[in-house]
Amino acid sequence: MTEEIYDIIVLGGGAGGVPAAIRAAQLGGNVAIIERRDFGGQCMNRGCIPFGHMMVASNIVGSLTLGKDMGLTFQEATIDYPTLRKRQDELIAFMRQGVTSTLKKNKVEIYEGKGRIMGKGKVIVNSATLSYKNIILSTGAQWQEPTFPGADLEEVVNTDSLLTADKLPKRVLLFGQSPWLIEIAQFLHRFGSQVILATPEETILSGESKAIITRLRKVLKNEGIDIKTQAEILALTKKKDGLYVDLHAKDDRETVIVDNVITLERTAALDDLGLKSINLDDNSPYLTVNNKMETEIEGVYAIGDLTGHQSQHYSHLASDMGIIDAENAMGKDAFFNPKTTTRILFTQPEVACVGLTPKEAKNEGYDVIVGSAPLSMNPFGMILSENEGIIEVVADKKYGEILGVHLIGTAASEMAGQAVLAIQMEASLDDLDKTPFPHPTLSESLAEAARDALGKPIYLP
Amino acid sequence: MTEEIYDIIVLGGGAGGVPAAIRAAQLGGNVAIIERRDFGGQCMNRGCIPFGHMMVASNIVGSLTLGKDMGLTFQEATIDYPTLRKRQDELIAFMRQGVTSTLKKNKVEIYEGKGRIMGKGKVIVNSATLSYKNIILSTGAQWQEPTFPGADLEEVVNTDSLLTADKLPKRVLLFGQSPWLIEIAQFLHRFGSQVILATPEETILSGESKAIITRLRKVLKNEGIDIKTQAEILALTKKKDGLYVDLHAKDDRETVIVDNVITLERTAALDDLGLKSINLDDNSPYLTVNNKMETEIEGVYAIGDLTGHQSQHYSHLASDMGIIDAENAMGKDAFFNPKTTTRILFTQPEVACVGLTPKEAKNEGYDVIVGSAPLSMNPFGMILSENEGIIEVVADKKYGEILGVHLIGTAASEMAGQAVLAIQMEASLDDLDKTPFPHPTLSESLAEAARDALGKPIYLP
Repeated sequence: MTEEIYDIIVLGGGAGGVPAAIRAAQLGGNVAIIERRDFGGQCMNRGCIPFGHMMVASNIVGSLTLGKDMGLTFQEATIDYPTLRKRQDELIAFMRQGVTSTLKKNKVEIYEGKGRIMGKGKVIVNSATLSYKNIILSTGAQWQEPTFPGADLEEVVNTDSLLTADKLPKRVLLFGQSPWLIEIAQFLHRFGSQVILATPEETILSGESKAIITRLRKVLKNEGIDIKTQAEILALTKKKDGLYVDLHAKDDRETVIVDNVITLERTAALDDLGLKSINLDDNSPYLTVNNKMETEIEGVYAIGDLTGHQSQHYSHLASDMGIIDAENAMGKDAFFNPKTTTRILFTQPEVACVGLTPKEAKNEGYDVIVGSAPLSMNPFGMILSENEGIIEVVADKKYGEILGVHLIGTAASEMAGQAVLAIQMEASLDDLDKTPFPHPTLSESLAEAARDALGKPIYLP
Repeated sequence: MTEEIYDIIVLGGGAGGVPAAIRAAQLGGNVAIIERRDFGGQCMNRGCIPFGHMMVASNIVGSLTLGKDMGLTFQEATIDYPTLRKRQDELIAFMRQGVTSTLKKNKVEIYEGKGRIMGKGKVIVNSATLSYKNIILSTGAQWQEPTFPGADLEEVVNTDSLLTADKLPKRVLLFGQSPWLIEIAQFLHRFGSQVILATPEETILSGESKAIITRLRKVLKNEGIDIKTQAEILALTKKKDGLYVDLHAKDDRETVIVDNVITLERTAALDDLGLKSINLDDNSPYLTVNNKMETEIEGVYAIGDLTGHQSQHYSHLASDMGIIDAENAMGKDAFFNPKTTTRILFTQPEVACVGLTPKEAKNEGYDVIVGSAPLSMNPFGMILSENEGIIEVVADKKYGEILGVHLIGTAASEMAGQAVLAIQMEASLDDLDKTPFPHPTLSESLAEAARDALGKPIYLP
């Protein structure tokens, strides 16, 4: 058998690997992709898609409160979790099929199996040896065992457990610093669970803009979700009536009884990739890349979860990086722009944080101005009862360049697109002031927040 | 009494006049605003806001269908229209109060009464004479009587009637070419009315992109709304059991029995403004302005509904023009950009058409390329059952400049902001391809539509 030499081998067929493979093939490359489990990766199979699906259901339940204020009364909802799960499983199966057929359409060779680098230019998969000129590493992240006492009990599970459960836990402690635990807390609460959300950090959404944190926290508390910060699990004991958690939080120590502790700890999936065989260090928690997404070894590129801490594990980041990897591996000059990084939550209200927070911007040496427009003062926001909504704009004083946009409110995930585009296009506060956003929308408040930063709001009291 | 000379008098306190007055005052002008009825104008009091409110309620009802697919079953909804109306009336009262207090905060002098120009530099209001250096005309539009036979019957009403009704009509014919009749058709249908939507045009949304028209039409038909095109009312007869409408549509002629015919015909409110006293022609259907929004008479500016046909009556257009008027009247150089004009519908799915349609772009001489991404192929679109959703991008082939974006789908009104910003910032197809829209969102399909136009879609089959 003649050995095939690929221009590019993509190791991992998730949110980053798939667009990387397709773009490389579109640029004329002879491309292979290797996936050991499910095409679409964590995001499509066990992350954004199923949990996004659950959040849509959760938001429909939430919108009934607004409906009631509007004169629409509904009888108590009957919730059938297996139906929800069945729908999302079918959707995911359909999407997965779509991914492989798009890969095939673009003439990307597909290998299903575990790939391992065997020295420069070689990968083995299913005992076949493939050769490559360049390689794109996109194996994503893997589950990490939590370290608190009792973490080995079978009632301590990760979020995957919700994807196969026939019913939801009655009493649950969500423990960790992952922002997605916040989504899951709201979902479980709305679907009838008694929820405690505990983070070891000083606050939920640690690191994000204060304007967002305060407001999200207020919404969740008002809704009845018990939030504990600076939390630590001191002991876990299994008894007849549940899991006894000795929980320390701030100055408080108490024992809570739950059915499950759910955690969400992930780390770059670097193990057993054969990185040492190409002199790539696999001892650090993730791979270091330059702004062309290339590792310290020439021709070896990486993407997404492999290149950052869990707080940076966003599938759109991986997809963006994937395209950049592919272009560079095919000889073009593409650069990753860290300024457009977006963090979103599909809670109700949704949260989207794009680019730099005020604090980060100051730390980077900018002379920072901040403007904001509460959605409670926006006409469409009033209709939607956006009492805690806000759009905050962070800019550089000198040229008015937009450095960050932080949103909490309905459709914040879609409005994030405007913010990303504004930063990408190097828009200024003046540009936003002049942009005729349609009325009545929440997006109008992006222009008003910019005007607020310029000291000339039109609609704010 | 010393006569006050204003730098700017704004005649009409609606969606255009209010931002005009505030911006002029912020630029240092001594400004007065005159409003004869309700501050906030048609949009806030009898247009976008109350109907936007109704559409939000209508969309909550609609989302229950998706909920059902997801395993959420609700008993039949009880709809209390007076509660809905009461909530929106209270919201509007609150917003109106906000408008006057914002005007006051910005030191704009408020006159409540009918203003009339009395020769160059003079306006009378409540028998006082005010002097101005520049004037901004922003009186908006007024109701126009329909011309079909029987239009004078009391059962033939305009959309204002819904704002004071205690209950909704059981059987209704919505007649006219206004796109807002489409919103109202869906609202009434979902709130239990039997609805016929009839337009004299060849199609609903005449003039918009075919991709949007076809899809919206399909949704409405599937939902059970009877759509008649090329329609004409030949006769109207009032009988005991209702209004007999002799309706001609295409090759079809039938008699339909309804309780009300609702129309929406508006025209620029030019009457009795005293335009002739400053040599301004008030015989044409609307005022002609240059790209600085100045009429043929120096120092006389106009805004919004006064400057265009009903199909151009959008409050965000008026607000945008208002700011431009104010800047120019205060000696700056601001220009109206017709390329960013947005038309939106709060139907479910929402519709947003920004900039040029493919046909309009061709007519303007561009070498047009079109790309599109159906939302049924977008992961979040699949979750939301966006079977008829699409994002279409219209661009100039030479430089890839974005000329138009047409969207149908959930949150299209908010996604329109990205499209407006893209056109405003002169973004190209390549810029959209490179913009890392967050995942999973519908907005991602804007980048994919751009890639489709470039012949390199990544996710489309």
